[in-house]
Amino acid sequence: MTANLDPVHLTQNLIRCNSVTPAEGGALALLDEVLSEAGFTCVRVDRGGVANLFARWGDKGHARSFGFNGHTDVVPPGDDAAWTHGPFSGDLVDGVLWGRGATDMKSGVAAFAAAAVDFVRNTPPEGAIILAITGDEEGDAVDGTTALLDWMSNNGEAMSVCLVGEPTCPDEMGEMMKIGRRGSMSAWFTVTGKQGHSAYPHRAVNPLPAMARLMDRLASHKLDDGSEHFDASSLAIVGIDTGNPATNVIPAHCTGTVNIRFNDLHSGASLSKWMEEEADMVAADFGVGIDMRVKISGESFLTPPGPLSDLVAGAVEGETGRRPVLSTSGGTSDARFVKHHCPVVEFGLVGHFMHQVDERVPADQITQLKTIYGRILRDYFA
Amino acid sequence: MTANLDPVHLTQNLIRCNSVTPAEGGALALLDEVLSEAGFTCVRVDRGGVANLFARWGDKGHARSFGFNGHTDVVPPGDDAAWTHGPFSGDLVDGVLWGRGATDMKSGVAAFAAAAVDFVRNTPPEGAIILAITGDEEGDAVDGTTALLDWMSNNGEAMSVCLVGEPTCPDEMGEMMKIGRRGSMSAWFTVTGKQGHSAYPHRAVNPLPAMARLMDRLASHKLDDGSEHFDASSLAIVGIDTGNPATNVIPAHCTGTVNIRFNDLHSGASLSKWMEEEADMVAADFGVGIDMRVKISGESFLTPPGPLSDLVAGAVEGETGRRPVLSTSGGTSDARFVKHHCPVVEFGLVGHFMHQVDERVPADQITQLKTIYGRILRDYFA
Ligand SMILES: [Zn+2]
Ligand SMILES: [Zn+2]
Repeated sequence: MTANLDPVHLTQNLIRCNSVTPAEGGALALLDEVLSEAGFTCVRVDRGGVANLFARWGDKGHARSFGFNGHTDVVPPGDDAAWTHGPFSGDLVDGVLWGRGATDMKSGVAAFAAAAVDFVRNTPPEGAIILAITGDEEGDAVDGTTALLDWMSNNGEAMSVCLVGEPTCPDEMGEMMKIGRRGSMSAWFTVTGKQGHSAYPHRAVNPLPAMARLMDRLASHKLDDGSEHFDASSLAIVGIDTGNPATNVIPAHCTGTVNIRFNDLHSGASLSKWMEEEADMVAADFGVGIDMRVKISGESFLTPPGPLSDLVAGAVEGETGRRPVLSTSGGTSDARFVKHHCPVVEFGLVGHFMHQVDERVPADQITQLKTIYGRILRDYFA
Repeated sequence: MTANLDPVHLTQNLIRCNSVTPAEGGALALLDEVLSEAGFTCVRVDRGGVANLFARWGDKGHARSFGFNGHTDVVPPGDDAAWTHGPFSGDLVDGVLWGRGATDMKSGVAAFAAAAVDFVRNTPPEGAIILAITGDEEGDAVDGTTALLDWMSNNGEAMSVCLVGEPTCPDEMGEMMKIGRRGSMSAWFTVTGKQGHSAYPHRAVNPLPAMARLMDRLASHKLDDGSEHFDASSLAIVGIDTGNPATNVIPAHCTGTVNIRFNDLHSGASLSKWMEEEADMVAADFGVGIDMRVKISGESFLTPPGPLSDLVAGAVEGETGRRPVLSTSGGTSDARFVKHHCPVVEFGLVGHFMHQVDERVPADQITQLKTIYGRILRDYFA
């Protein structure tokens, strides 16, 4: 039996890799080395300029395969000089580890890698452990976890269940896990009228009153009150723009953008249809043209409460004394891709300072997270 | 008796002066020369970088003083290469005179200057003729006609009545004159909320739904149905802008701009009060801050139908066979300043191609305009 792997030290070394999306920065290479040494079969699954790492301990295609998913890429640090400790310093000061990725989510990757290594070294399970680690979760995510999952299906690799190690706890360690996510979509509207002079409005067709009406209608429509496992859906107008410098000119065009976070009472298609009907009605009322373009980032999904969520919640409660709430709140994560592959839940540390200057985490929270992940493995293979 | 002054030739020479606001371009110097030679007392009334020309024939402070007002500055030509004939060429081709200012309004200035010169040479009147010509009507107009009027009151100069020579005819020569103008004002609204992530709209305060509601309310409110001498007032939203590049971010601010053309049922103050009440109500409903800034370009004004409009309409009808409609339509003009000084009406040629590429005018329309202005002078001093 070798010495246990220190997840704080591993996080520190990962933070020191400059892996701002899509740079690999040495982060996946480091994990490859650590995991290979512990007997994992490691394969780099790079696609479209994105680096990804697949690692498996145990037999390929085993019916009992526990998967972890996470990412080593980070968002840009912004102004380096604004950081108390350098964004890639990995400084450990008074028990706090500093740097970009300290919470999102080099710590999570280090915790599950360390937990998996210790587990296979100390109590080799009957089954397989798979780590699917991407270098592009913060970017387009087109060639990230999706590339790993594509490669896995093409190569007979499969996870029975999967835990995504993103930060899930709002304030206290253990208080929340995620069993699904709301869907996310954006819609861009272009209203086209006819340019003219403000003094002769009857000779022009002003697109802006139509835009104001459309946006007012969309924003004041209550989508729902939430569902069994989901918060209410929400629509946010995120922009209306005209770019007309002259107060005596009625512009020909304006654009408006909305972003919708939606639960399982809707789909990208049903919401597109609703918005298109609203746009058509307003276009007819105001005699303008309205063009709508839609991008669905992800449909809502849910892994209904059951064995997997019980397993994770039980381990979390056992280690923290807190029974985590089963939530579907927040933004999107790569769980939206994994859910096409196998049941998936998410649990990780407290998400403070994500994407902010001075991102940092108490070192003992990383250690505790490793312990929780280890307990999940123990319980899963028990 | 000297040869009559050719207004087409004078317009041509004025067009060849590059007098894009605020450049004088030699245009006022040319008029100074022509008018001085005919016995006018000419004074350059320059202020704040703007050149203006005051010219009087006859006794200072005469109780019977007919005034003309106009401008020699022009709006920029845009892309020179887009013009069939150069914007400062003054080319006369097949009876059509080409160039920036051909309709707005070097032709008008040339026509009244030529009419006045001929009139004082041929039939010196009992009274005075005043020409107040500015080099800044198209710009801020702060130091243009206003500077001339200020200088006149400070120097004991006065017009009994005034004719502004702006183009007033929509399609046919003689069909319309103006006896007033609607007021014009703009209002800029800034709505301030609290920035946040689209996935957590309850933690943010989105300014955009409030902006959409406010703009919808302002634009769909019917201000009036018109009054005896005025068309209905109109409000145009001319811009809503956010400048938020990210669909997952709820912005903190957005701005909206409206422009109002209003008749004598309103004032800048009454409309400001109405908009402020609407903004306050929406701000309270949506929990946002709304800041409003207002600029009143001019209040509405009217020279009620009477001796001056009868005089001008009669002369127009006598020369064209058309009785001009007494209108208050269109944008603003320097008549909004002159009306503080004396009764003012406006009459000029057909306003096609104003501010457009390939601005041009039939030469005989300029000649006809000179004849009309001459008849007005004859009838006034009869
Ligand atoms: Zn993340
Ligand atoms: Zn003009």
